[in-house]
Amino acid sequence: MKLIGYFRSSAAFRVRIALNMKGIGVEHAARHLRKGEQSAPDYVAINPQKLVPALVLESGQVLTQSLAILEYLDETHPKPPLLPADPVDRAHARALALICTADIHPIQNLRVMAYLRKELGQSEEVAFAWSRHWIETGFDAYEATIARDPRTGAFSVGDQPTMADLCLVPQVFNAVRFKVDMNRYPTIRRIHERCMVLPAFDAAQPAKQLDAEA
Amino acid sequence: MKLIGYFRSSAAFRVRIALNMKGIGVEHAARHLRKGEQSAPDYVAINPQKLVPALVLESGQVLTQSLAILEYLDETHPKPPLLPADPVDRAHARALALICTADIHPIQNLRVMAYLRKELGQSEEVAFAWSRHWIETGFDAYEATIARDPRTGAFSVGDQPTMADLCLVPQVFNAVRFKVDMNRYPTIRRIHERCMVLPAFDAAQPAKQLDAEA
Repeated sequence: MKLIGYFRSSAAFRVRIALNMKGIGVEHAARHLRKGEQSAPDYVAINPQKLVPALVLESGQVLTQSLAILEYLDETHPKPPLLPADPVDRAHARALALICTADIHPIQNLRVMAYLRKELGQSEEVAFAWSRHWIETGFDAYEATIARDPRTGAFSVGDQPTMADLCLVPQVFNAVRFKVDMNRYPTIRRIHERCMVLPAFDAAQPAKQLDAEA
Repeated sequence: MKLIGYFRSSAAFRVRIALNMKGIGVEHAARHLRKGEQSAPDYVAINPQKLVPALVLESGQVLTQSLAILEYLDETHPKPPLLPADPVDRAHARALALICTADIHPIQNLRVMAYLRKELGQSEEVAFAWSRHWIETGFDAYEATIARDPRTGAFSVGDQPTMADLCLVPQVFNAVRFKVDMNRYPTIRRIHERCMVLPAFDAAQPAKQLDAEA
């Protein structure tokens, strides 16, 4: 299999963690998002959405959308599981994952910031504050939810990492880049630090990818 | 069970279709999003994210995030299934669903439009064009994907409605409200029309909810 990503993409980061956790070796390729390489015709032929990641299977079939890829990997390589066993707990883990993947990241990603600057003529500062606002709005909810939920353990749901943590950690990396005060989120911080001790998370971080830049 | 929604919320609409398809009767309650009722303390206690829908189970446990709720309903009430059987096809259906639920809807929903107007001082017209832009960007990708995929049938993936269609149809309702030219999307249009013939989709549409307004 081949994973087409970008070192700083949170969506690709989530998938890298899952592959590492499950011990699935893949070939890595990158599209430089800031240079617009995701809009090149050969990539649009792979993913008309012009977003990374894309996972190219041995059959040549292409999977897109990081959450769909995580579910696929969990269905085809069940160990270790990315979701708890109980349906209500699974819904809880997925809901936490979706706070990051639907209600934070798509609003503050590169293409939206580019639209704010280019189409709406906003300054870099306004675009930066925009991103921070949506990260904080989402983290306020994430923190409030896990701070009170009895299922919160060493990780977001229980004592094993789940899909929730795989989506949280890349968003924390983004939050730090956008100078979000992480002291506001003690539970998220604790879980993030616990995750980053694990080799599967550590090896997946942006700075450790082949296409990483300063 | 009780579903807390809002007639015009695409996220609540998705869940209503799933409940109808699976023949699950629930009590319906509404929070008026334009009046800010999702930020009232009694609702924040239910969902700290201040978004609808929330599904309150008989146990009192609360499920949030429409996609997590769809997966829960599919796991606990498997018939009819919301996803195909094959893992690659399941990933395809989920990826299509995520184009709508992660990469369109969160960028153009009420709270983002309110931020554009209030915090960035943009006109109603700019906020409207913003929403249309993100719907068109997502639909361009959705249409390109299903127009060429051999798995496309009467519905987005095959000849039975899947999670993809449950997320597509509410987004088409939004697109029409934002005056997107649906002639650009012949495959989406065809599938939308096919879905709306089904009672499960028809009964879930905004205008047929108890809290509907003109």
